[in-house]
Amino acid sequence: MRWSHLFVPTLRQDPADADAPSHRLLLRAGYVRRLHAGHYSLLPLAVRVRARIIQVVREEMERAGAQEMLLPTLHPAGPWRRSGRWDLVGPELFRLADRRGNELALGMTHEEIFTTLALEVTSYRQLPQQWYQFQTKFRDEPRPRGGLVRVREFTMKDAYSFDIDQDGLDASFAAYRAAYIRIFERLGIPAVPVEASNGTMGGSGSTEFACPSESGEDTVVRCPACGYAANVETATSRLAPVSDDGTDPSGEAVPSGASGEAGASGAPEAFDTPGVRTIEDLAAGFGVPADRQIKTLVHLVDGRVTLVLLRGDHTLNEQKLADATGASELRPAEPEEIRAALGALPGSLGAVGVTGLPVVADEALRGRRGMVTGANRDGVHLRGVDVARDIPSPAWADLREVAAGEPCPSCGTPLEVFTAIEVGHIFKLGDRYTRALDMTVLGADGERVHPLMGSYGIGIERAMAAIVEVHHDEHGIVWPEAVAPFAVAVVPAQTDDPEVAGTAERIYGELRAAGVDAVLDDRPERAGVKFRDIELTGIPHRVTVGRRGLAQGVVEHTVRATRETAEIPVAEAVTHLRGVLAR
Amino acid sequence: MRWSHLFVPTLRQDPADADAPSHRLLLRAGYVRRLHAGHYSLLPLAVRVRARIIQVVREEMERAGAQEMLLPTLHPAGPWRRSGRWDLVGPELFRLADRRGNELALGMTHEEIFTTLALEVTSYRQLPQQWYQFQTKFRDEPRPRGGLVRVREFTMKDAYSFDIDQDGLDASFAAYRAAYIRIFERLGIPAVPVEASNGTMGGSGSTEFACPSESGEDTVVRCPACGYAANVETATSRLAPVSDDGTDPSGEAVPSGASGEAGASGAPEAFDTPGVRTIEDLAAGFGVPADRQIKTLVHLVDGRVTLVLLRGDHTLNEQKLADATGASELRPAEPEEIRAALGALPGSLGAVGVTGLPVVADEALRGRRGMVTGANRDGVHLRGVDVARDIPSPAWADLREVAAGEPCPSCGTPLEVFTAIEVGHIFKLGDRYTRALDMTVLGADGERVHPLMGSYGIGIERAMAAIVEVHHDEHGIVWPEAVAPFAVAVVPAQTDDPEVAGTAERIYGELRAAGVDAVLDDRPERAGVKFRDIELTGIPHRVTVGRRGLAQGVVEHTVRATRETAEIPVAEAVTHLRGVLAR
Repeated sequence: MRWSHLFVPTLRQDPADADAPSHRLLLRAGYVRRLHAGHYSLLPLAVRVRARIIQVVREEMERAGAQEMLLPTLHPAGPWRRSGRWDLVGPELFRLADRRGNELALGMTHEEIFTTLALEVTSYRQLPQQWYQFQTKFRDEPRPRGGLVRVREFTMKDAYSFDIDQDGLDASFAAYRAAYIRIFERLGIPAVPVEASNGTMGGSGSTEFACPSESGEDTVVRCPACGYAANVETATSRLAPVSDDGTDPSGEAVPSGASGEAGASGAPEAFDTPGVRTIEDLAAGFGVPADRQIKTLVHLVDGRVTLVLLRGDHTLNEQKLADATGASELRPAEPEEIRAALGALPGSLGAVGVTGLPVVADEALRGRRGMVTGANRDGVHLRGVDVARDIPSPAWADLREVAAGEPCPSCGTPLEVFTAIEVGHIFKLGDRYTRALDMTVLGADGERVHPLMGSYGIGIERAMAAIVEVHHDEHGIVWPEAVAPFAVAVVPAQTDDPEVAGTAERIYGELRAAGVDAVLDDRPERAGVKFRDIELTGIPHRVTVGRRGLAQGVVEHTVRATRETAEIPVAEAVTHLRGVLAR
Repeated sequence: MRWSHLFVPTLRQDPADADAPSHRLLLRAGYVRRLHAGHYSLLPLAVRVRARIIQVVREEMERAGAQEMLLPTLHPAGPWRRSGRWDLVGPELFRLADRRGNELALGMTHEEIFTTLALEVTSYRQLPQQWYQFQTKFRDEPRPRGGLVRVREFTMKDAYSFDIDQDGLDASFAAYRAAYIRIFERLGIPAVPVEASNGTMGGSGSTEFACPSESGEDTVVRCPACGYAANVETATSRLAPVSDDGTDPSGEAVPSGASGEAGASGAPEAFDTPGVRTIEDLAAGFGVPADRQIKTLVHLVDGRVTLVLLRGDHTLNEQKLADATGASELRPAEPEEIRAALGALPGSLGAVGVTGLPVVADEALRGRRGMVTGANRDGVHLRGVDVARDIPSPAWADLREVAAGEPCPSCGTPLEVFTAIEVGHIFKLGDRYTRALDMTVLGADGERVHPLMGSYGIGIERAMAAIVEVHHDEHGIVWPEAVAPFAVAVVPAQTDDPEVAGTAERIYGELRAAGVDAVLDDRPERAGVKFRDIELTGIPHRVTVGRRGLAQGVVEHTVRATRETAEIPVAEAVTHLRGVLAR
């Protein structure tokens, strides 16, 4: 390819509205352009990188024994209704009607549709089946951002496995897990497999592949010692033991004004707390440590006012609440909704004596006594609360979000917390979809069985962004060779010098003849302009042919990653490059 | 690939609802399955054929100097409004709203979107630009049919050229025309380039590539002598001269009861025609030849009642009427609408004396005298109509549909008419989109210029269907080697015979090592079942390894197209196949 024939609109300045390094660099280096929020045009260099990523993924899918298919993007509502997701999934699912008024959805994932196809599989002898596709997916994200990191339209490799039993599903899942590890290694993405929430996908477990990056939107908890790693949506930590017997575990007396056994009579005791709005207010003003307070949050869970209880020093993880309640819609209640339900405003809320509203309590509150909570009267709290006695039958769940430094649940080492880009996600779905869509096969014993499914996804353009997040420097992108749009750029420093131009042309031709994906920067620009563009676009190797070098019989080879330049005899240039690329 | 790992659900019976040979065969041979009307899942064999077609198209696009991009599928309404097509295109455009209420469309074609991207091109020095993509297109067809022939979702290769002037556009158009001819030749599609209507695309001319097939929906007119070829939507023919001087051109007297110079007085004369409903009624009952009658049709053109006049023996082509009027919506008027507008029912309609309604007249009526038409009173006609005198200022247009046997407009040879599948369509768009979206570049003279565009499309899955329409026999599909899912199937006739199975395995391995795309039919089925599936799926070459042959030291090579079988010494099998495939 000749650069003069390529549309690579590089920018001299950083674009103003780019909110992630990959966004900034892919715009600036002429890889992508935004059409509207969440929708990007891929220009020629990006199409080349995308094709290389797809090829790596395809090779590993084939190695895992999966078969490539291509299923429709525009889905009928029927299968989504039967799985329950037509209602369960919110506005993230783009919906429309056709000219006859039939309801349709733009596929955000394809469990229902592959299961519909699988209705044609009738015997356990035909299992396992491993099917995959590269297909455009659509998600009406509330906040598209980060360029290619979070978009509304993207290419996904989605794979689906159908097995006759749990052993089969476990084996399929393990095979995809291994394939994903190879894929991300080949792509140069340092992804960490972590436990994650299944969300609305359903099923029994999932592993997310998290690429550490400040541009990411996921929060990952990891133990530096034992390898425990989980998305904060499912991560747990070991809690220090708490004593409610009048001393805390360190042996110090619990401040009597705060809790104590006020309720020997069997009831909590109200006390005035004028001006208290927060956990900190109550701790500072009344000497009630946060871990002796019950934090009472009010959420609307699928439209129903619900009390959510945590220990005062703990934070709610909303996905945990969603998973615990099975909710498809979840939001904090507005103050007026809270006052209507409880008669008080945030700061003095509590679950004691509340009837008729669902209560979900975090496990860390189980069995606690001598606690303090709001009285549902502004400026009044209760002390001496015995959770088991005073808050009967809440739904118990793990709701709290793990914080950095808390002990690893496996080995006790302080946990690390980092942000990451979710570059892949694999799910054990069990019979959620085969049961809903009544897909059965005849088992070996003649009985009809619902096969067990897994599903396995990688976002292709997000992988491209993740690579850039990890592989760039202040001069631009630094593509790993496996995904670079071109392996080598050949640059005549003086295009108007026939010997320089001719030598560059010859080297370019020989590289191509040797199967090297080379580009000739034949633009009549100053060498500096070309060097800058080639650095910015991240082409791994540059061969510079210049007047001065030719006089010495040499050309220059510059490695993008290190920016180191070596002189190579002209006659050895192609052999040298082939050797470098073969490594 | 091993057949036992492939999902190829072949059917023993023809599917009941298949309405085209390609539909029937692609279903029966396990290539596709219908998800809902107009949306098909491509199974593994179809994905392989699709990839080969795409590769052929991509190679020819690269050869033509075009650059691959990938633009969004989900379009904002803005550019479509600016081009006018948001309103011009009817329900064929899928429309939806996102969670914020923004109007969106699913791309049915990408002129607006590529032009939006081209806003970044600023100088004539950057022209020409040739951009293309393989992208899913969506069209809400009123009547999806023929399996992959007419669907609502399909892969299109769409290309767009931007040139500084008409010479540039002409050169780009010629380059794509040549590329398309090569593509269809390589794919084994006997496509004929024919003149066609631009429809709602706009612009100054277009060429359609028509693959003759009874499953097609286009009607093509072709001269067997001089090569004239056009879609019936634009085709013309030479008309035999007509004399209105009382004799027809053959010298016979015109029946005086019918026409004659009744209007010497300068006005047509009414006469009773009770019971006359059709052109034929008037010809049979009153001796008025059809070519002396004015056929008056009433259409709603963008909602406005419009009279459409043709010679009595001619037929309206609706696309010609749409092109002539620029209408986006067109339909015949209902009888009650006609009566309300003209006071009479079809059978006695005419344009004489009608005011306030637009009239479009076919060129064949220009200057005619002594004609007969309806009087807008049921059972009454007018004779002695002088078109120029009695029907003032109609819009003149070519409206009539050419019929087989009419003389070629170029050489006079009787024309042929056949049905065809439109496998490609290329358009000269001029500045229709660059002007509407205000895309300009600085010309060499420093003036801002709207570049001239072309657009060029091939439907990939429709091409697959067209290949099957042309290449099949009573036993199944007969793929050309260039697009076959596998080049060779290796079949052990007795899988339970270790020598047979081992030899088949070895030949399969050697073929693959030699770069031949082979499949091993390792299923524990009877040989007849395998042969039938391999014939049905259309794999060009079959190597059969059987016990009897091995005793003689031979295997069989069967050519799918001819069904001829030859015996080949075992040791020469791979060399033989490689030689056959290299041809």
